[in-house]
Amino acid sequence: MQWNVYLSGEIHTGWRRQVTDGVRQADLPVTFSGPITDHDASDGCGVQILGEEADPFWRDHKAAKINAIRNRTLIQTADVVVVRFGEKYRQWNAAFDAGYAAALGKPIITLHALEHTHALKEVDSSALAVAETPQQVVQILAYVTRGSPIS
Amino acid sequence: MQWNVYLSGEIHTGWRRQVTDGVRQADLPVTFSGPITDHDASDGCGVQILGEEADPFWRDHKAAKINAIRNRTLIQTADVVVVRFGEKYRQWNAAFDAGYAAALGKPIITLHALEHTHALKEVDSSALAVAETPQQVVQILAYVTRGSPIS
Amino acid sequence: MQWNVYLSGEIHTGWRRQVTDGVRQADLPVTFSGPITDHDASDGCGVQILGEEADPFWRDHKAAKINAIRNRTLIQTADVVVVRFGEKYRQWNAAFDAGYAAALGKPIITLHALEHTHALKEVDSSALAVAETPQQVVQILAYVTRGSPIS
Amino acid sequence: MQWNVYLSGEIHTGWRRQVTDGVRQADLPVTFSGPITDHDASDGCGVQILGEEADPFWRDHKAAKINAIRNRTLIQTADVVVVRFGEKYRQWNAAFDAGYAAALGKPIITLHALEHTHALKEVDSSALAVAETPQQVVQILAYVTRGSPIS
Amino acid sequence: MQWNVYLSGEIHTGWRRQVTDGVRQADLPVTFSGPITDHDASDGCGVQILGEEADPFWRDHKAAKINAIRNRTLIQTADVVVVRFGEKYRQWNAAFDAGYAAALGKPIITLHALEHTHALKEVDSSALAVAETPQQVVQILAYVTRGSPIS
Amino acid sequence: MQWNVYLSGEIHTGWRRQVTDGVRQADLPVTFSGPITDHDASDGCGVQILGEEADPFWRDHKAAKINAIRNRTLIQTADVVVVRFGEKYRQWNAAFDAGYAAALGKPIITLHALEHTHALKEVDSSALAVAETPQQVVQILAYVTRGSPIS
Amino acid sequence: MQWNVYLSGEIHTGWRRQVTDGVRQADLPVTFSGPITDHDASDGCGVQILGEEADPFWRDHKAAKINAIRNRTLIQTADVVVVRFGEKYRQWNAAFDAGYAAALGKPIITLHALEHTHALKEVDSSALAVAETPQQVVQILAYVTRGSPIS
Amino acid sequence: MQWNVYLSGEIHTGWRRQVTDGVRQADLPVTFSGPITDHDASDGCGVQILGEEADPFWRDHKAAKINAIRNRTLIQTADVVVVRFGEKYRQWNAAFDAGYAAALGKPIITLHALEHTHALKEVDSSALAVAETPQQVVQILAYVTRGSPIS
Repeated sequence: MQWNVYLSGEIHTGWRRQVTDGVRQADLPVTFSGPITDHDASDGCGVQILGEEADPFWRDHKAAKINAIRNRTLIQTADVVVVRFGEKYRQWNAAFDAGYAAALGKPIITLHALEHTHALKEVDSSALAVAETPQQVVQILAYVTRGSPIS
Repeated sequence: MQWNVYLSGEIHTGWRRQVTDGVRQADLPVTFSGPITDHDASDGCGVQILGEEADPFWRDHKAAKINAIRNRTLIQTADVVVVRFGEKYRQWNAAFDAGYAAALGKPIITLHALEHTHALKEVDSSALAVAETPQQVVQILAYVTRGSPIS
Repeated sequence: MQWNVYLSGEIHTGWRRQVTDGVRQADLPVTFSGPITDHDASDGCGVQILGEEADPFWRDHKAAKINAIRNRTLIQTADVVVVRFGEKYRQWNAAFDAGYAAALGKPIITLHALEHTHALKEVDSSALAVAETPQQVVQILAYVTRGSPIS
Repeated sequence: MQWNVYLSGEIHTGWRRQVTDGVRQADLPVTFSGPITDHDASDGCGVQILGEEADPFWRDHKAAKINAIRNRTLIQTADVVVVRFGEKYRQWNAAFDAGYAAALGKPIITLHALEHTHALKEVDSSALAVAETPQQVVQILAYVTRGSPIS
Repeated sequence: MQWNVYLSGEIHTGWRRQVTDGVRQADLPVTFSGPITDHDASDGCGVQILGEEADPFWRDHKAAKINAIRNRTLIQTADVVVVRFGEKYRQWNAAFDAGYAAALGKPIITLHALEHTHALKEVDSSALAVAETPQQVVQILAYVTRGSPIS
Repeated sequence: MQWNVYLSGEIHTGWRRQVTDGVRQADLPVTFSGPITDHDASDGCGVQILGEEADPFWRDHKAAKINAIRNRTLIQTADVVVVRFGEKYRQWNAAFDAGYAAALGKPIITLHALEHTHALKEVDSSALAVAETPQQVVQILAYVTRGSPIS
Repeated sequence: MQWNVYLSGEIHTGWRRQVTDGVRQADLPVTFSGPITDHDASDGCGVQILGEEADPFWRDHKAAKINAIRNRTLIQTADVVVVRFGEKYRQWNAAFDAGYAAALGKPIITLHALEHTHALKEVDSSALAVAETPQQVVQILAYVTRGSPIS
Repeated sequence: MQWNVYLSGEIHTGWRRQVTDGVRQADLPVTFSGPITDHDASDGCGVQILGEEADPFWRDHKAAKINAIRNRTLIQTADVVVVRFGEKYRQWNAAFDAGYAAALGKPIITLHALEHTHALKEVDSSALAVAETPQQVVQILAYVTRGSPIS
């Protein structure tokens, strides 16, 4: 079985690269998907494609909905959803994705620093694994897909 | 029809009271539910009932899961989910609830100040109404349940 | 069993009254629901409650979404959905409701003049009954709920 | 991921060709499906295959149901549903398809001229994007599938 | 809990009366529903309400669909479905109801003479009990709802 | 799209061959599945594999359940279900399959002689096409999959 | 809200009584259901109602299926499922109920001695609370339904 | 059709090998999946990947949840679930898997010695076949996938 893994959340550090590189090196049967991580494209796609908006609310609204075409579809087709919470910003979209995945019954792996444990307790309690490093995510995927962590 | 409305999110201001008072004064056919809003009880229920934990992670974990027995059940039985984002804290649980409700197809009303518009664009894009005041939430419930806003 | 019947579609003639009066006179175990039929309230609820919009598109958008809180919820809880197509306007919302109900597996009764048969063939083909008069709808509900049409 | 996109609605102009040509030129990972667009075949398939009907209602009924075998199946397997409303005819089947797709949770893109905004407000409010030109639909598919609109 | 039990199948003998009488005498918490058992009304409801048909096929079609409004709804709300196969006729509707209930995951009790065992093996294999007499159905309902068969 | 079509029902005439030959000659994108049509294997598989039974009821029961592993799985994965009723036997399993497919929302094509119209009215009313000959089934599949009947 | 709680598992000690007594004393809005706990009735109901069986396998089979009419229905309608594992017997039915409830997304509370922790790790990992005493179950229900444990 | 078969349960004997060897020799269209059967890896994966735990409960908890990422996903994608109960240990996870598969409507084949018939009656009653030997499982898969047992 080829596993589809959706990488949700923070887009400002290189964690996605670390996870995908680790999986490639270990040659695991995993295909990745995720949101568009080009921040300007993601914020501007609504007005860029469908026309300008005077009100910032509707500008954001049009962008968020176009992104939702992508993201909800990919979460629905994922076998595992990894949700990353970083150090900055409020990242409500990451928590939203976790709730969305939880209601669909998708296995969730959260990835965040120990210091956010208390603030993320509801999210973590819906996860099947709580990781602190991208390497741990790779190890989990290695175990889950072939039974042996990477040595 | 009696409408079940779940009031999710921020527990530090009186917004729930304002919504429920407004609905009671308008005599609307609405029943409310929501999380336990006693902050200490909510944080401590796990170890208080099931035994102490040395590691704060598991202390939180046990509490969050007991709260999930309540919260996920009530969201599942709700007709409408109102999600409030306040000024303080990260409130990832509110965004989680919104994602959870969205995947279940529940109508969502978000309630937050204008300044959070950009950070909440993904959450707002899944909502059927974005309110700034508890009074607007009452007005929406009045319109939805009997067709006329409160004068 | 008390039957919940949602009356969707055209709001400019008295067909809802004719159906509900007929059902009341026959003392059938049927409860009715439907959209807000006050046309101005229905069109204006968005900006009246949540604030004015310069762009007519967003004005309509906010209203349509608030109405969706009501309508989708009531269709989901209905046992039978009656969809009425009248003589005027495009009535795309009526056909939308029919499609929505069809995908949910709800029994559909359409109500329209014979002249719309060809234009409504896709909608009618998803219905369990195609009526031309409100009296026929009452007769169907009488038969379905107690086995005998009204004499 | 290969995306399945269903093109619903108006069959009298070349919009489907414009969308599919644009997508092919941009080499996007998209496969299209849609209803049979040969108008005579679509109207006549019922009696042509299953035998003549004296009553036009049943003639239409048999055709609409055979078309439903195709259309509902393809909508159910689609990742995105595009619904086009043109200038002529009542196009209740397009609105029906939109409602059907909405209840299934499919991402919807509507495509219509600005002048239909008010009449289509309920349909548009269920969509994740409202486009006015086939080129915009292509741009959305380009963004959704690879993150960059076509320059 | 009040149990809803749907009594499907043969309408020419008094088995429904035997089951409901037995349940009433035992004072079990059971409510019954079922199809319209007035054979002429059931066959004629289509043309009687919606207008005559020249072709017997469409006459039956209109009747069967109106009956489906009732029967599918009641099966969907039933907790247990009892399906009776009698001595006469082909009773394909009874087997259809059994298949319909099976796909919905409803507990099925079949009721038929031993001689039909081989012909009904597929239907019986989807049932949780295979009874030969109405009294056995009453006993099962007594056991299931309060734990003790009727002495 | 490759269409999966399940051929249910009567196993004593060559109708399956006629349908599959017609589809092959027309080179349609259709894959067929169906029950095991070797009558002795189908009846005997239970005791042949899992051990003899003294009671004919259990002999049938074991066989019917093993067949159900195959048949329910294939119906669930089918895009279209064709159900054939022949001249002989009670064929309750065919009607059961039709009910099962109907509850799953599968498009159904029934195939039977005109004389069974009245007895099959409930089954036919759940179908999207009612055919009398295997050739008509082929024509429907040709139209549904590529838009043109076979000339 | 009135909460429905299903009490699954071991039937040889008084834990059900302890839970229900505790809930009654605390006057919680909880209604209980569960399997038939009369061991002889539960084992014998199949042959007692539907006729003797020579083979013990079929004797058990008939009983287990009649019990399934009750138990699966009640688990499906439960808001919370408590699963008790005792000191004796293999209790595979308790673990089966836990898996059944887990796949339905029901909140699970397990109740067992510490010594079974390792053997029950898969079951416990699907639970939202793992209790060691009936009093803890009462406390959880008190917290979940009204926010305050019993003092 | 390629059939996905999940092999659940006991990991201490060679039954999986016997089933997969038999299927390979018969060249059946079957792909197998199952839990990680390396006992130490399965028990230790939690702490090995995510960090040590002082409390054995949490050590087991972390492992069981990581295994659940694999096992629940594979059961959900399986067409048939085989559940093996051996001679030793309590094997509550096997019964849990059976309950999980039953609630998902998966066809279940149980595999165990005759002596466990009474203890497994609830589990067996949810199965479509009850086998005593791996060879019987192979025979069932041969019959189900191509209609003829292996001679």
